[in-house]
Amino acid sequence: MFENKIKITAPFWQQYINLIREEMLPFQWSVLNDEADIKIEKERDADHIPAEKSHAIENFKIAAGISKGKHYGMVFQDSDVYKWLEAVAYALHQHQDNALQKIADEVIDLLAKAQQSDGYLNTYFTIEAPERRYKRLYQSHELYCAGHFIEAAVGYYSVTKNQKILDIACKLADHIDDIFGSEDGKIHGYDGHEEIELALLRLFELTKNDKYKNLANFFLYERGKNPNFFKEQQKTDPSTKPVIEGMESFKPEYYQNHKSILEQETAEGHAVRVMYMCTGMAMLARLNNDEKMFEACKRLWKNIVTKRMYITGGIGSTVIGEAFTADYDLPNDTMYCETCASIGLIFFANNMLKLDVDSQYADIMEKALYNTVIDGMALDGKHFFYVNPLEVVPQLSHKDPGKSHVKTVRPAWFGCACCPPNLARLLSSLDEYMYTVKDDVIYSNLYVSNKSDFKINNQVISIEEITDYPWDGKITFKVNSEATFKLGLRIPSWANRYLFKLNGKEFTPKIEKGYAIIDRTWEKGDIVIFDIQIEANFVCANPLVREDYGKVAIQRGPIIYCAEGVDNGDNLHLITIDTNKKINEYKDSDSLGDIVKLELEAEKLILDKQWNNILYRNIMEKQENVEIIKLKLIPYFCAFNRGENEMAIWLKTK
Amino acid sequence: MFENKIKITAPFWQQYINLIREEMLPFQWSVLNDEADIKIEKERDADHIPAEKSHAIENFKIAAGISKGKHYGMVFQDSDVYKWLEAVAYALHQHQDNALQKIADEVIDLLAKAQQSDGYLNTYFTIEAPERRYKRLYQSHELYCAGHFIEAAVGYYSVTKNQKILDIACKLADHIDDIFGSEDGKIHGYDGHEEIELALLRLFELTKNDKYKNLANFFLYERGKNPNFFKEQQKTDPSTKPVIEGMESFKPEYYQNHKSILEQETAEGHAVRVMYMCTGMAMLARLNNDEKMFEACKRLWKNIVTKRMYITGGIGSTVIGEAFTADYDLPNDTMYCETCASIGLIFFANNMLKLDVDSQYADIMEKALYNTVIDGMALDGKHFFYVNPLEVVPQLSHKDPGKSHVKTVRPAWFGCACCPPNLARLLSSLDEYMYTVKDDVIYSNLYVSNKSDFKINNQVISIEEITDYPWDGKITFKVNSEATFKLGLRIPSWANRYLFKLNGKEFTPKIEKGYAIIDRTWEKGDIVIFDIQIEANFVCANPLVREDYGKVAIQRGPIIYCAEGVDNGDNLHLITIDTNKKINEYKDSDSLGDIVKLELEAEKLILDKQWNNILYRNIMEKQENVEIIKLKLIPYFCAFNRGENEMAIWLKTK
Repeated sequence: MFENKIKITAPFWQQYINLIREEMLPFQWSVLNDEADIKIEKERDADHIPAEKSHAIENFKIAAGISKGKHYGMVFQDSDVYKWLEAVAYALHQHQDNALQKIADEVIDLLAKAQQSDGYLNTYFTIEAPERRYKRLYQSHELYCAGHFIEAAVGYYSVTKNQKILDIACKLADHIDDIFGSEDGKIHGYDGHEEIELALLRLFELTKNDKYKNLANFFLYERGKNPNFFKEQQKTDPSTKPVIEGMESFKPEYYQNHKSILEQETAEGHAVRVMYMCTGMAMLARLNNDEKMFEACKRLWKNIVTKRMYITGGIGSTVIGEAFTADYDLPNDTMYCETCASIGLIFFANNMLKLDVDSQYADIMEKALYNTVIDGMALDGKHFFYVNPLEVVPQLSHKDPGKSHVKTVRPAWFGCACCPPNLARLLSSLDEYMYTVKDDVIYSNLYVSNKSDFKINNQVISIEEITDYPWDGKITFKVNSEATFKLGLRIPSWANRYLFKLNGKEFTPKIEKGYAIIDRTWEKGDIVIFDIQIEANFVCANPLVREDYGKVAIQRGPIIYCAEGVDNGDNLHLITIDTNKKINEYKDSDSLGDIVKLELEAEKLILDKQWNNILYRNIMEKQENVEIIKLKLIPYFCAFNRGENEMAIWLKTK
Repeated sequence: MFENKIKITAPFWQQYINLIREEMLPFQWSVLNDEADIKIEKERDADHIPAEKSHAIENFKIAAGISKGKHYGMVFQDSDVYKWLEAVAYALHQHQDNALQKIADEVIDLLAKAQQSDGYLNTYFTIEAPERRYKRLYQSHELYCAGHFIEAAVGYYSVTKNQKILDIACKLADHIDDIFGSEDGKIHGYDGHEEIELALLRLFELTKNDKYKNLANFFLYERGKNPNFFKEQQKTDPSTKPVIEGMESFKPEYYQNHKSILEQETAEGHAVRVMYMCTGMAMLARLNNDEKMFEACKRLWKNIVTKRMYITGGIGSTVIGEAFTADYDLPNDTMYCETCASIGLIFFANNMLKLDVDSQYADIMEKALYNTVIDGMALDGKHFFYVNPLEVVPQLSHKDPGKSHVKTVRPAWFGCACCPPNLARLLSSLDEYMYTVKDDVIYSNLYVSNKSDFKINNQVISIEEITDYPWDGKITFKVNSEATFKLGLRIPSWANRYLFKLNGKEFTPKIEKGYAIIDRTWEKGDIVIFDIQIEANFVCANPLVREDYGKVAIQRGPIIYCAEGVDNGDNLHLITIDTNKKINEYKDSDSLGDIVKLELEAEKLILDKQWNNILYRNIMEKQENVEIIKLKLIPYFCAFNRGENEMAIWLKTK
């Protein structure tokens, strides 16, 4: 990690990064310690979701023998702490903060005490059921939690050089390697929730210890060899009690073990699981030069982004199993679009870029980041979405139990609190996603003002990027070093008109896989301008997406826009857009921040009084009455910040 | 029952009635005895639904001490037998069948043996948990089952004068009266599933014993007085094990005990429960001249039919709790629209008619009957829908777990088998719904060819009705008696053009509450013709129904039409209708029977190859290509008889 020194200077992202360090991480710490005065919500109506408190730190204290009591929370509650710790690492990398680091160091001391002598680390099984260790893998999340700890360790060690956390991680990974593997006497299996694979590969990249790469390789290739593995493995569990309720009926697809991963043609099952699996696959393909695995990655990638992804970069079409469903099945009002799933999609995309620098991966990374991911938190940094809906009608969220997961305002925390700390760790490490450096090419994936030093051919190259992206498309790169290297600038898929200038003179660069490649012996002070004309456009979906047929969405640059009831009144479905109308853009600065808003003339049906107390009638000769309205649109990620109201991305068109 | 002798002669309905007697009832008997070679399906994906066999008769044998074994099936499995028995009664009324009656008599002997000495009758609690009797009323269905038995007894006694079944029923009802009531020492409560109320009122109507009416009155007025009743009552249960899984999280609304029934403004919760409650309420309002109860009935009726009912007469917008959701929330692809719920709506409507002869009730009765109810069975009489969808895309039923209840073909039987025998008992007793006779008026609610004798002022009046309804709107009444009485002919709400003739001469009758009233001293041979011009029309929904906005349905007479994939290809959502086009009608006779089919010119989008592997793109200047198709429409109730395919009622319009 942090091979290049990237210092983000963009106000848009600085604001998020500061919010995370100053507000979100202290807030999350208070939640993990049950000190925050908040209402924890269930992510959907279900009896079995524990939502009274987090108890995550207390669980560790009990496991460490410091406190007495019982475990509380989801069986994977530990991972909330690990993701928080990883986010702290990246926040410290952005900005040193001794007080925060002290808290984190103390957490690490606590984790060391909670770790068992053989390396095992998991509060639920240590406190409640040591005899059930690794005996109900499809529900236990033991390796999932281990993976999140290992990721935290890799991150925290990389930033702070804290040896203790790395030692715990290696001891834990070695322990897992003792238990799992193809050798006789080891469990020939894997976790119900992928995560350990990518974590072991990160540990391998840090330590260069082949054992960890080989174990990840084992987990990935073992998956799906025997679709009945979990059912059979469950028989070793001395208890018949589930460790998570409501999962008994899930089929192998839910866990991606319905077939070997090289044979999986479509993304099936729990969306976050798929993303973490794919991330591990892409890492392994790169680290092992595994061509077959690379092909498998491309197949799943293509299926997702060309058939199973929302325009916001959201994935997961159903709340039942938080899962993929079928090609082109993308309902806007019952979808899942979990924040974690889009974060996982960014992990996958970023690792595909490392394998194969193709702008399609960065395009999707950008789409998910600017829409679903940052929609996952309120502008105050203290309220979060688990599910990021494309259409909300508040009374239906309240009265239709099939929409109980579609929250109308962001809760402060969740019974299953995977998303908020995941957001924190992604946004705090955004610098790791902005560039892909390969051989002598610096590829710019995301356009974010920054001052950076890259290492190419043992030379340090300083580049400054200045832009008001995503609101404005003018991107200026100032090269502050004399050197020979290539600069690769991603041409966003939505960009229709753009030009390149080198030191004031327009030129036409060579395009390779969606990147403009500027190959040059640079002089200090060289200035490249990539000027994209960002304008609002009407976007339509593939007609096979039945929920979007006859509708349009409005996109400006990477940002998807939406209409809210607070601006446009209720019953947004009665609005009809004429795509011949001009979309007006204006900069605004209000409670939603400094953003570009859109406005266009549209029609809205006036409800005829004759419809009172009538549900159905023959169509009438005369046209229904419509009023002309000024439709106001705001960036989707800003929605739900002004109280409960209707929201829609897709609007009816003529 | 059977106060008037009504002999249905209409081929349309004769076919159903014969099918029920000749095919459906013997088939159901073989299923109840676990002798049918069929695949029983779960009505939706859920682990806890027992679907290996029916076992219903065997349960009675075990409870009677004739067989050994354990109870199998839902806790309310007994009611399948009772509804079958009631259907047999009505089939015998239509057509004497000694063999069938012998089977039924033997079932009654078995039930007598299964009844406990104190009158209690329920196989689950008798076999498995006598100590839990009446201790978990929100799940136990004990009074629900008792109600269905009492209904069967009323029906069977009315037809056959079998005293034994009536004695069992009275003993059971007396036993319930010993246990429940406002007196000290009795349970001040009610069943989680309404049914006993209407059953006791039917028993009162037969026996004239006030005790039964008073007990029904108690149950209805007690309901909702204390919304925590079920929670509190559950504490008396010596076991904490549910008797039905998956119901723990349901709120009082599910059981209609969230408030007193006089205060319920909207239809909430499980749709069948609401309908059975409303039926009991309407009966009580009539039998007790209870004005407040009548007002409550009208309120709930209005809420349902003006805000919460599908165009097919289906009700229940969500599978979760098989329940109502919110006003105007009528999704077409995830709805419930249970067959039993529409049957219940007909019970409610029929009893409202007895209170207040207003054509709005008969209109809805007709709508539910010709669409959702008869859609509930295949044309072979041996396959059934539990859920009657308005839109089906087979791959989504298979791949979206939120649509696991939306079957693409009718199964032979269900784990929860409430619907098939309910259909049998309704259709076999259709004669009870065709007319409402009040004072000296014979109101015709449903137009069905028949020869009938009515009793008015102690005089028998013979009338013959001849019509090819619903395909043709000419309805001829031949009065074959000399008498003074009024004939009330419902003017269907969908009828735009019609005329009346008396003995060949056109006339304009007085209209009262939607009925044309022909008041006359009739002569033998008088002929009244009510000639409605039945034509296909485009129907639209209230614009607040967001799922139907911008769409039309096609209705002809009472029949709602639909498009199927087998006639029109896949992707029905790509079809656009121009409502200025003429709808062609033609009689056809094929595997779907003798029906009127419709055809009209429509446009269907041709999928551009440029959409291959693209999900979203900017809208294009050029229009998308469309082809002109001959859209073929069939009656909705005929759908799903030609294999699995797409189906849609609501189609996009320009």
